[in-house]
Amino acid sequence: MNIQYIIPHEWSIIEEGFDKNNVGSSESIFSIGNGYMGQRANFEETYSGKSLQGSYIGGIYYPDKTRVGWWKNGYPEYFAKVLNAPNWIGIDIKINGQTLDLNTCEVSNLRRELNMKEGWLCRSFTAKLANGNQISVESLRFISFKIKELGVVQYEVKALNFKGTIEFNPYLDAGIKNHDANYDEYFWKILGVGNDDKVGFACSETFKTEFRVCTAMQNVFYTNDTEIQSDFEIQKEEKKIGFKYQFNVVQNQTIILHKYAAVVQSMNHPKDDLLAPAKKVLAEGVALGFENLLEEQKKAWNEIWETADIVIEGDVKAQQAIRFNIFQLNQTYTGDDARLNIGPKGFTGEKYGGSTYWDTEAYCIPFYLSTKDKHVAENLLKYRYNQLDRAVENAGKLGFTNGAALYPMVTMNGEECHNEWEITFEEIHRNGAMIYAIYNYVNYTGDYTYIPKYGMEVMIGVARFWAQRATFSKDKNQYVILGVTGPNEYENNVNNNFYTNYLAQWCLRFAKENLEHLQSDYAEDYHRIIAKTGLTSTETTQWKEVIEKMYLPKSEKLDIFLQQDGFLDKEIIPADQLPKEQRPLNQKWSWDRILRSCYIKQADTLQGMYFFENHFDSDTLERHFDFYEPITVHESSLSPCVHSIIASKLNRVDKAYEFYLRTARLDLDDYNHEVHEGLHITSMAGTWLSVVQGFGGMRNFDNQLAFNPIIPKQWKSYSFKINYRGSTLQMYKSHEATQLLNLTEKSVEITLNGKKMIV
Amino acid sequence: MNIQYIIPHEWSIIEEGFDKNNVGSSESIFSIGNGYMGQRANFEETYSGKSLQGSYIGGIYYPDKTRVGWWKNGYPEYFAKVLNAPNWIGIDIKINGQTLDLNTCEVSNLRRELNMKEGWLCRSFTAKLANGNQISVESLRFISFKIKELGVVQYEVKALNFKGTIEFNPYLDAGIKNHDANYDEYFWKILGVGNDDKVGFACSETFKTEFRVCTAMQNVFYTNDTEIQSDFEIQKEEKKIGFKYQFNVVQNQTIILHKYAAVVQSMNHPKDDLLAPAKKVLAEGVALGFENLLEEQKKAWNEIWETADIVIEGDVKAQQAIRFNIFQLNQTYTGDDARLNIGPKGFTGEKYGGSTYWDTEAYCIPFYLSTKDKHVAENLLKYRYNQLDRAVENAGKLGFTNGAALYPMVTMNGEECHNEWEITFEEIHRNGAMIYAIYNYVNYTGDYTYIPKYGMEVMIGVARFWAQRATFSKDKNQYVILGVTGPNEYENNVNNNFYTNYLAQWCLRFAKENLEHLQSDYAEDYHRIIAKTGLTSTETTQWKEVIEKMYLPKSEKLDIFLQQDGFLDKEIIPADQLPKEQRPLNQKWSWDRILRSCYIKQADTLQGMYFFENHFDSDTLERHFDFYEPITVHESSLSPCVHSIIASKLNRVDKAYEFYLRTARLDLDDYNHEVHEGLHITSMAGTWLSVVQGFGGMRNFDNQLAFNPIIPKQWKSYSFKINYRGSTLQMYKSHEATQLLNLTEKSVEITLNGKKMIV
Repeated sequence: MNIQYIIPHEWSIIEEGFDKNNVGSSESIFSIGNGYMGQRANFEETYSGKSLQGSYIGGIYYPDKTRVGWWKNGYPEYFAKVLNAPNWIGIDIKINGQTLDLNTCEVSNLRRELNMKEGWLCRSFTAKLANGNQISVESLRFISFKIKELGVVQYEVKALNFKGTIEFNPYLDAGIKNHDANYDEYFWKILGVGNDDKVGFACSETFKTEFRVCTAMQNVFYTNDTEIQSDFEIQKEEKKIGFKYQFNVVQNQTIILHKYAAVVQSMNHPKDDLLAPAKKVLAEGVALGFENLLEEQKKAWNEIWETADIVIEGDVKAQQAIRFNIFQLNQTYTGDDARLNIGPKGFTGEKYGGSTYWDTEAYCIPFYLSTKDKHVAENLLKYRYNQLDRAVENAGKLGFTNGAALYPMVTMNGEECHNEWEITFEEIHRNGAMIYAIYNYVNYTGDYTYIPKYGMEVMIGVARFWAQRATFSKDKNQYVILGVTGPNEYENNVNNNFYTNYLAQWCLRFAKENLEHLQSDYAEDYHRIIAKTGLTSTETTQWKEVIEKMYLPKSEKLDIFLQQDGFLDKEIIPADQLPKEQRPLNQKWSWDRILRSCYIKQADTLQGMYFFENHFDSDTLERHFDFYEPITVHESSLSPCVHSIIASKLNRVDKAYEFYLRTARLDLDDYNHEVHEGLHITSMAGTWLSVVQGFGGMRNFDNQLAFNPIIPKQWKSYSFKINYRGSTLQMYKSHEATQLLNLTEKSVEITLNGKKMIV
Repeated sequence: MNIQYIIPHEWSIIEEGFDKNNVGSSESIFSIGNGYMGQRANFEETYSGKSLQGSYIGGIYYPDKTRVGWWKNGYPEYFAKVLNAPNWIGIDIKINGQTLDLNTCEVSNLRRELNMKEGWLCRSFTAKLANGNQISVESLRFISFKIKELGVVQYEVKALNFKGTIEFNPYLDAGIKNHDANYDEYFWKILGVGNDDKVGFACSETFKTEFRVCTAMQNVFYTNDTEIQSDFEIQKEEKKIGFKYQFNVVQNQTIILHKYAAVVQSMNHPKDDLLAPAKKVLAEGVALGFENLLEEQKKAWNEIWETADIVIEGDVKAQQAIRFNIFQLNQTYTGDDARLNIGPKGFTGEKYGGSTYWDTEAYCIPFYLSTKDKHVAENLLKYRYNQLDRAVENAGKLGFTNGAALYPMVTMNGEECHNEWEITFEEIHRNGAMIYAIYNYVNYTGDYTYIPKYGMEVMIGVARFWAQRATFSKDKNQYVILGVTGPNEYENNVNNNFYTNYLAQWCLRFAKENLEHLQSDYAEDYHRIIAKTGLTSTETTQWKEVIEKMYLPKSEKLDIFLQQDGFLDKEIIPADQLPKEQRPLNQKWSWDRILRSCYIKQADTLQGMYFFENHFDSDTLERHFDFYEPITVHESSLSPCVHSIIASKLNRVDKAYEFYLRTARLDLDDYNHEVHEGLHITSMAGTWLSVVQGFGGMRNFDNQLAFNPIIPKQWKSYSFKINYRGSTLQMYKSHEATQLLNLTEKSVEITLNGKKMIV
């Protein structure tokens, strides 16, 4: 596979030339979305080559029947997954009766550009068909930020060396399947396809979940800047509606199609008449027109970049990469709707079911807190608050009682939908991330009211879980947590994972402290919550006992917290001594060998030290980094960012930069040969963290914002902005200067390089 | 479900009355077989109710495509499973044109008997059809021990209240599927169905493995003891051949069919012409005739019982149960063919794929060693010897080198076909059972030559595996074995499972000792083996190091070997304090809860103490029994027997008897509500062990046969026989007397109740 074919550019992702091997990767990389829906960069016209057609709508899911080898008690019956939704981009083209298919015709001058500054994707190429007809094609499309339910395609065909007919067949196809369906089933029932005058539509409903979607299109044609009124022939199939338009052209004539597509659905509109809002969306779109919509798109993105942008001077690939990551995060989640969340692949693929993981809380929350209004992160927190009852049910299935809550490993609607016992049942540290996100929210926003309003109930549910999940070991006279999987999924069913135990202890303490705070300062909320949850003092007394007696595995000799009990029984050989042909381990070694080895998939003990850096002095941090870093293989996209941040903290800027590179261009350069499956959306937040918390040294512990910036030698300068409690701060760092500006009027107390100051 | 419907009888399994809920269970319980093939007790005639049709041929398997939820590196692509083979018992009956179907007609006086003394199954009933016609039916069938490839059915229909026509449609049906097929596929390709005069046949071939089977039938009819020459109509379908015979009968007339069925296959005959041997088998069968074949069957079983029988006086249910277990073991494996082995369900169901597990070596070998000629157990050992290369390949897939062998968890042809990482990759103690079986073989038979001939190579492969699989822990300055699952599968991926570590250490020591023995006493074999395996002194030196420094987890405080590291961190609550509604745990608790609990599925540390009882004094044994027994839940059929044996050893006869009851009538009384899936064949050997090693106190360590008999108060007496090095010993034990007879002329030195003597 040809990797690293993306042309470096500050603001755009560009591909030039046509290599069929890259079709899949580019389909992912050039994806577009607006938080409400998303679309892989599939070709509009017929493509008979290999392709992963993908159109996704946030929140629309289907519970696919679980597939297991060996059933374990407690497994869910279903895996909820985001649905491949009806295709709205399709436009078949025929030239003098011959179908345009890039897989079979001669293609030249193909160029794609994903313009991140303005939020659109364009593509141009010249094609020579088997009949000798040559055309040039230019398409430009975007999913509107102005009208969220609208997608627009401008598709131009120019006759280069012939006169004759050009046929456009814009269509809607509801006959789609998920590529990751467990049993190759259709998830959609077709309610009807048809047209109402110029509006074509396909209405369908998901089986079981009964979400309804109406996808509708309206087409406007131009030649020489003049709209063409054209008749069309309706081509209706069981699951597909197309309009056939035919134009007679002379040589060098261009026909331009503006295809407007509305995608409306029953989460936002009454179920029984979705055609009406779809037509309304189309009418608005057509009335505004393509050019105005594009202008609005540019404005919307301009606004996003105003706070979200990171400028890197002197390293165009790094600049392109960081913007790509920020761009994709903004395409995936905009924070308008607390029913939505951030799937690991966003709207760019189907792997991982498009569902919610702890990635959101551990990695994405600080990004949205820093670059968006606080309601965006608040909606992410409320997503979990709204699913608290389900988390209690989920814990109940595993034998926990009395309101203990275990948030699922993977979810769409609050129910667990993952089925791999060592993860589903044991990777319970995720429960702590829910609380850490609340802690972060209050630290960043200063808005404590979230806790009495929502956060406290979540904290109680989670604290109850930890208190029940810990086991009192008579042997140790301490509380232990048995049978877990930490963030390092290359260890399963271990006892006393440091990260898990530490986080559990912290959750209990944080819950207890906040309860006390509420009791004194938010008495009304306190009493409401106590009444609602039935929390007793016996419980909180037991929490205290668990907090005080929580066991943490440690080697006194090395003065190192151990990732888990028995870790030092392993043979410890630095990963760089492994033969290259044995990497990545997850492809080359059998699972048992990985498990009993010392190699760490992603930051685990160090993830804990990253979360709670303020609990450890630099020497301790350094000792742990030096112990764990050499045996960490970073075979998760979520790993290098944490190591990069800690390396920066330890002033090891080269090491930090090395890790930064592993995360920043992961997708653009397709390090793992898997980008065709979709982008690593949540780990993109980690890249942002590597710059802002890493090089920028931003910290936000206990109501104190701090910066400690350093700069890699490969860059001339960098700058980023941070929303902080109503102010916007801009950090500029070059080798010569460090500049922290407050772009707003409200002053802020911060710590810069260890010195407190007011900006 | 109506359980405990089997009528107690010393020599027969009897069911009276017709309860459709019991059809599935009885299909399993009344199964017949002869080691070469087996047949569930499906009805011959049409049955439209729920049924698991099952006909199985030893060694004929198909690699079914693996089904997993989450792929782990190292998993096999296929799960080899024993095949549901063409149905040879089918006989459709029509009375005046109406089909006999026990699911729809009125049935009375149904009686089944599985006569274990003589090896046949009969069934009789009266049926009233919707048209009012009443018939009585009697069928008797067996799979011949005289002609292994022959099955015979005698099927009599008597017209009770009508005159008219009785139609017999004996058929062969090759259109069968495995019920446990992962993707509901057909595993058989039909090569041809048809007839050659009176012989009907169906020839088919398994996909992929290309085993060929020819099933053929010949039918002979009688009325009033006179053979009827009858024409028939051929009813041929794509996968099925039937012969339609029609008889006009008067009231009270009986028509008798003798259906002879041959099942021949390409493991034993040239592939290209299987019809010839099938016809030969039929010709032999028909020539001998039903009565003679039945006489031969009785003789064969008489011979089997001669040594295998255990007589229990005063407890008919115990008597029935122990004979049932011995009977089924003899139906499953006869030891003629080293390509065959003993699946956990034998020929009685499809669960567990019909493949070979460590059950054979750990439980079945002593049974066959004691009750059969030594070549039977030798063939079981050779099965593994012949698969040594595959075990080396299997270890290679997991990263082991230099001839290290890991025998598969589940296999048909030597390749691993199991795919559950915590078992497949981690339940490696199975490798030790291979060596323990060799140790047993030599102890029982006194035939040391097996080791230079075959056993040593297996020992070297296994020793190499253990030496590589052990990890040197700098922290402990000892060798540890990380990431294993012990016999107690309610713990996964633990470190330093006592049983595994102890067995590994023993294997290395036993291999080393035997190498030295060979070097001094079998020099030629020694040099051949060294040359073949390339074993070096560096290796054996390292073995010595591992033997000497093997770590065994132990609580010094309790003076107890711990099942694994960290076991004492668990909350230890005796299983009898668990609420009844939470049992069995594997149905009521989620998997993670089971894992972190103290509860033990099957004997684990105690399994080790059972294997190596001679290494531990009685106090130690008692201490461990008292620690582990209360937390063992025996949710594996292989567990109670070990506890029973140890309880007997500790002279706790009531406890021993309690455990004995849990194993002896497991299937007859369907304790786990799952007997419809098939019988627990391998655990039946455990029942035998509970009597002979348990109550009988037979031990066979280090070339010393010993007995220490006790008797439960519920029994008057019991007696069993043992083949031992060319002698047959009979132990008789009553409350008053202990009698050990040597039934042969060769004298034997034994220890009885601690006293050495010659019998």
